[in-house]
Amino acid sequence: MLKEAIFHLCDDPYAFVIGTNQLKIRLKAKRSDVDHCTVFHSDRYTSTKGEEKTQLIRASWDGDFDYFEGVINSKTKRIKYRFHLVGYDKSELWYGEDGVSEHSSKAGIFQFPYICEPDIFNIPPWVSNAVVYQILPDRFHNGDKSNDPHPAASWDELPTTDSYYGGDLKGIMDKLDYLEDLGITLIYLTPIFTSPSNHKYDTVDYFKVDPHFGDMDQARTLVDEAHRRGMRILLDATFHHCSEHFFAFKDVMIHGEASQYVDWFFVDSFPIVQSPSPNYATFGFLGTMPKLKTHNKALRDYLIRIGGYWIEEIGIDGWRIDVANEIDHEFWRLFRKKMKSINPEVLIIGEIWHNASAWLRGEQLDGITNYKFREAVHSFFAKGDINVTEFNGLLTKNRMTYSDQANQTMFNLLDSHDTERFFYDCKRLRRVENTEYAIELMKLTVLFQMTYIGLPIIYYGDEIGMTGGMDPDCRKPMVWDSAYQNSHLLQFYKKLIKIRKNSDALIHGAFKTWIEDNEQGVFGYIRCGNNETIGVILNNSQSFHSVNTKITWKLSHQKVTDILSGREYLIDEKISFEIPPFGCLLLV
Amino acid sequence: MLKEAIFHLCDDPYAFVIGTNQLKIRLKAKRSDVDHCTVFHSDRYTSTKGEEKTQLIRASWDGDFDYFEGVINSKTKRIKYRFHLVGYDKSELWYGEDGVSEHSSKAGIFQFPYICEPDIFNIPPWVSNAVVYQILPDRFHNGDKSNDPHPAASWDELPTTDSYYGGDLKGIMDKLDYLEDLGITLIYLTPIFTSPSNHKYDTVDYFKVDPHFGDMDQARTLVDEAHRRGMRILLDATFHHCSEHFFAFKDVMIHGEASQYVDWFFVDSFPIVQSPSPNYATFGFLGTMPKLKTHNKALRDYLIRIGGYWIEEIGIDGWRIDVANEIDHEFWRLFRKKMKSINPEVLIIGEIWHNASAWLRGEQLDGITNYKFREAVHSFFAKGDINVTEFNGLLTKNRMTYSDQANQTMFNLLDSHDTERFFYDCKRLRRVENTEYAIELMKLTVLFQMTYIGLPIIYYGDEIGMTGGMDPDCRKPMVWDSAYQNSHLLQFYKKLIKIRKNSDALIHGAFKTWIEDNEQGVFGYIRCGNNETIGVILNNSQSFHSVNTKITWKLSHQKVTDILSGREYLIDEKISFEIPPFGCLLLV
Repeated sequence: MLKEAIFHLCDDPYAFVIGTNQLKIRLKAKRSDVDHCTVFHSDRYTSTKGEEKTQLIRASWDGDFDYFEGVINSKTKRIKYRFHLVGYDKSELWYGEDGVSEHSSKAGIFQFPYICEPDIFNIPPWVSNAVVYQILPDRFHNGDKSNDPHPAASWDELPTTDSYYGGDLKGIMDKLDYLEDLGITLIYLTPIFTSPSNHKYDTVDYFKVDPHFGDMDQARTLVDEAHRRGMRILLDATFHHCSEHFFAFKDVMIHGEASQYVDWFFVDSFPIVQSPSPNYATFGFLGTMPKLKTHNKALRDYLIRIGGYWIEEIGIDGWRIDVANEIDHEFWRLFRKKMKSINPEVLIIGEIWHNASAWLRGEQLDGITNYKFREAVHSFFAKGDINVTEFNGLLTKNRMTYSDQANQTMFNLLDSHDTERFFYDCKRLRRVENTEYAIELMKLTVLFQMTYIGLPIIYYGDEIGMTGGMDPDCRKPMVWDSAYQNSHLLQFYKKLIKIRKNSDALIHGAFKTWIEDNEQGVFGYIRCGNNETIGVILNNSQSFHSVNTKITWKLSHQKVTDILSGREYLIDEKISFEIPPFGCLLLV
Repeated sequence: MLKEAIFHLCDDPYAFVIGTNQLKIRLKAKRSDVDHCTVFHSDRYTSTKGEEKTQLIRASWDGDFDYFEGVINSKTKRIKYRFHLVGYDKSELWYGEDGVSEHSSKAGIFQFPYICEPDIFNIPPWVSNAVVYQILPDRFHNGDKSNDPHPAASWDELPTTDSYYGGDLKGIMDKLDYLEDLGITLIYLTPIFTSPSNHKYDTVDYFKVDPHFGDMDQARTLVDEAHRRGMRILLDATFHHCSEHFFAFKDVMIHGEASQYVDWFFVDSFPIVQSPSPNYATFGFLGTMPKLKTHNKALRDYLIRIGGYWIEEIGIDGWRIDVANEIDHEFWRLFRKKMKSINPEVLIIGEIWHNASAWLRGEQLDGITNYKFREAVHSFFAKGDINVTEFNGLLTKNRMTYSDQANQTMFNLLDSHDTERFFYDCKRLRRVENTEYAIELMKLTVLFQMTYIGLPIIYYGDEIGMTGGMDPDCRKPMVWDSAYQNSHLLQFYKKLIKIRKNSDALIHGAFKTWIEDNEQGVFGYIRCGNNETIGVILNNSQSFHSVNTKITWKLSHQKVTDILSGREYLIDEKISFEIPPFGCLLLV
C-alpha cells in the first residue's frame, strides 16, 4: 500500500457527528490500493482490549484516491479509534494519530473526545427535499405597471447592464401557480431592498422593499401566498458591501472622520475620494460599493437586526447571502445563532464559489452556492471537455470536502445571473453533429442535477429553454409566451421534479458511482435510500450505446423499471441496456 | 513526483493568517521528492497574468513527508494562489483547488477570500517568552500551619491518593523569591477552589479559595506579589465536571426532576443512583464527578462568570482548563470572547492530550497541554526507544498540525501530576551502563525543552531532581532541604532559562532540523530569529561522538561559540565537534 496517500483527520470532513451517538468517519487512500479498511474503536476511558470493529466501505473515488466511509456508534459519546488496512498486495498497516505503520504500537490512536450536542451540524428538516427556483424580480413578471421605473424597457427588448423592466413582487405572486405547477418548493429572490441598480446588490435601505418592486404588504402577502401553497421564500442580502448611497456611507462622505459611521467602513484616508480609484475598501474595485466593516459591533448588530427583521416581520424562510466568503467567520457564527433562535428552521446559504469547508462546519452557514458542481457539469455536459472519470473525480473531490449535512444543503446550480445560461453553452460549446442534441444535452444535465445529492436550483427561465451569455444577456426577461417556450423541456423538468420529490433515495440516499465508461461516455451511479435504490445511467455522447452491467441491488430474475420510459427489464446474471445519444435511464 | 502525497488545504493549518496582510502557506509532499515549490498568487479580482511568485522553503520533514512553507503578502487581503512544483526527477506539476495536474488549467486555483481581522489568531504578546512552573498547592510549601487539614501528613511522608500535606497559598508566596531566582515568569497553580480532595479537580465552590489553601485576600496578595516580581499567575478550572458536593448537584440529588438545576447535568433517570454505576454522565466512570451540561445557558453563564470573576477580583493572568476537550466548542468561543473582553492579554490553555486542531484555530483556546511533545521526548530521551529520525518525525507531525501561533503557545511539558516524573523514567527506563548518565539525560531533555518552540513548563521539583512514578508518587511534597536537592540540575535549569529568556531566536525563531544522525544518536537543529541564529547539537547516546558539519548561517573564518562551555570554534569549510555522552552544544 502507498503509505503517503493514506489520510485521515479527526475533524470535519474526515470525522463528523451525524447523530447524538454517531460519528461518521472517512479515510482517503490511493485508488485501488486498499482492499479492506476497518476501524477499531472503543470508549476513551477503557482499554483497547474492548475495541469493537467497524468495516468501512469504499464509498467514493476520484482519479487518484479511494474514500472509505463508515459510522461509529458510541453510547458514551467518547471515542478513540484507529484504522487497520489490508492492501490488495496483502500487506497490513495500522493508522492512528502518530501515523501509518506496520506496528500498531507506532500508529497511535485518534481521539474524538466527546460528541457535544451544540456542535452538531443540524440542517432544517425541510431542506433536503426542496426544489429551488431563482428569480431576478425585475426580470420575472410585471404584475403592477403602476410601480414601473421610468423609462422601463419593453419586455422583449434585449437587456443592457442598465435596463429596468418593471418586474415586481406582484408579478411573482401572479406566477405562484406556475411555480407550484412546476414543482418548486423554495423560491429564492435576488435582492428586493431599495437600491438604484436593477440587480439591487448595492443596497440603500435594507429595511424597505424597493418601490419599483412593491412594498412591505406585498412582500408579506407574497410570503403568505407561497406558504399557503407549500412553498418557502429565501431572500438575498448583501452584507459584504452597500450602495454608495447607503445612509451611513453618505454620512462618512459628508462628515469624514467626524462621522459616527466612520468605523462601518475601511477608509484609508480623508476626505473620501471615489475616483480614479477609491481610498476605501470596496467590493472588487468598485467605488460604488463600499465594503462594510462587519466586525464593527454597531454595524454587526445593525446587519444582524436586518436578518431577524425580515424573518419576524414577513416570515421569510431564510437567507442567501452575497459575497459571504469575504465576511468574517465570527459574523456568521453570530448571525446563525440569532437567525436560528428566531426560527430554528431558517436556512442560511452563502454565496461562495470555491471550496468552503471553513464555513460549513455547522456553526456558520448551512450551505453554499455550489459553483464547483456547476464547473463539473459545465465541463462534462456543456463543454464535453472532460471524460467520465474526470467528471466523477470533480464531483467526488467536492463531496469529500464536506460533511453529509453540508452536501445535503448545497445549492446545486447549473447557472445563475453571474454565468452564461447553461442551455446557451450546450448549444455554443459542445461540438455535436446534430444541433437538436443541445436540448437532449440540457435534459441530460437536468436529470443529473435532479438525481444528485443536494438541492437542485433552477435559474428562472432555464426550464423553458431560455438562453443567453454573460450578464446582461443571461438576465433577459422571462419568456411567458408559450409559443417561445420549450414546452418539451418544461415537461421534462416537471417530470423530473416529481420523480425527485417522491423518491427517498434521490433526496436522502447515498451517492455511489456505478459505471465509468470513458470510451462510450457513459456514466452510471446509484442512490441508495433506506427503502429504495435508484440506478441512473447517462449517455453523454452522440452515439447509441449498449451498456452491459449488473443490477447489484436486486435479485436475479426480478424486474427493474426505467421510470422515464416505463420500460421493464428482466434481471439476468448480466443485463444490457440500449441508450440513445444523450439518453438516460432511471432504474428502480 | 508522487502526486498522491501532495497535500494542501486552504484552511488552518495549511493556510493561516499571521498578519493583517500576511497569509502563511504550507504544502506537504513526499519526502525528498519535490525540489522546488513555488506559489503563484494574485488578488482574487485580477487575472492570473499579474501573478507574483513566492518560493516556498522546505521548512520541516518527517519520515514520510516534506513540509514547504512560505508567506504570501497581500495588500488587498484577497488572495488566489496555486502551486508549481518541480521534482528531483525534473518533472513539473501544478496544484490548485481541483487537484494535482501536469496542466495548470486542470489544477484550478485556491482561494483565500479575505483576511478578516476578527478571525486572526492573536496570542498575548507576553506569552512567547514565558517560562512556566506548575504547582500543586497542597504539595509545594506549607506557609501557614493554622489552616492545615487534619490530619496532615508529615512533609517527608510518602503520599497516598488521600494524603493532605498542608501546602497553601502563603507557602507559595514565601517561595516567590525562589521562583523568581529560578527564572520563572508564569506560575500555574492546579485548582485552589474549595474541594474535598487533595488535587481539588472536583470543585465544590468555584468562588471560594479552599480554606486549607487560604482565602481570597491571600490569593490576591499572591497575584500582586507575583506581578510585582514580573511573574504572572494562571489558575486551573474544572468546568467539565464538578464535585458531587457542588450545590447544584446536591440539589438534583435531593429534588430530582423538580430541581431547578436538573438541566445542569446529564441525568438518564430519577432518582439519582451513584452505585454500582451512576445513572448520569460523569468524568470517566467516576460517580463522584458529575459531568456538567456546559451548553445549558444558565450553567454556561455561571461558569463564564467564574472565569471573569477571578480575573477581575484578583487579577489572574489566565486559565488552564481541565478536560477542555470534552466541553463543546461553542462554550470555548463564548468563554474566550468574555475573558479577552475583560483583559485581552489573558491566556487560555486547555488540557488536551491528543491533537487539538479543532480547538486551536484562534477563536477558542490559545494553547494546550502538549502531551504529544511529552510522548516524543519521553520516547527519545527517557526510554530511548526511537531514533533521531523518528523523534524528529513526531515533533514535525505535531508542529504541522497547528498554526505558528498555536505552536508558540503550547505548554511543552516533560511530565505532570498525571504522569511519571521525567527524571524517574530517565533512571528507570533508559538502559545506560553508567547510572550517573540519568542526570545527563535529564539535562539533555531540559536543554531540548528550553530550546524548542513553545512554552517550557516545569513541574514543581523537577528542577531539583525529584522522582516518582504515577500518582500518588509523582505528587510528593516539594523537597526544600538543599541536602536532598540536586543543585547541579538546579543550576543547569537556571542557566538554560536565562539563555532562553535572552534569546530572540529561542523564543520566536523558526525551528529547522539540521542533523539527523541515527547511527550516533545525534540530533541537531537550528532556531532562526530575526537577528540571531542558534544551532543546537544533542548527543542522545552513551558514547563520545565526533560530529562533522557545516555552519551554514555564518561565514567561513568567523567564529562560533558554544554558549554552554564558552568554547569558541573557528569555522572552516567543515567543522568538527566532540560531544560527550548525553552532551550538547548551543552554538551562536
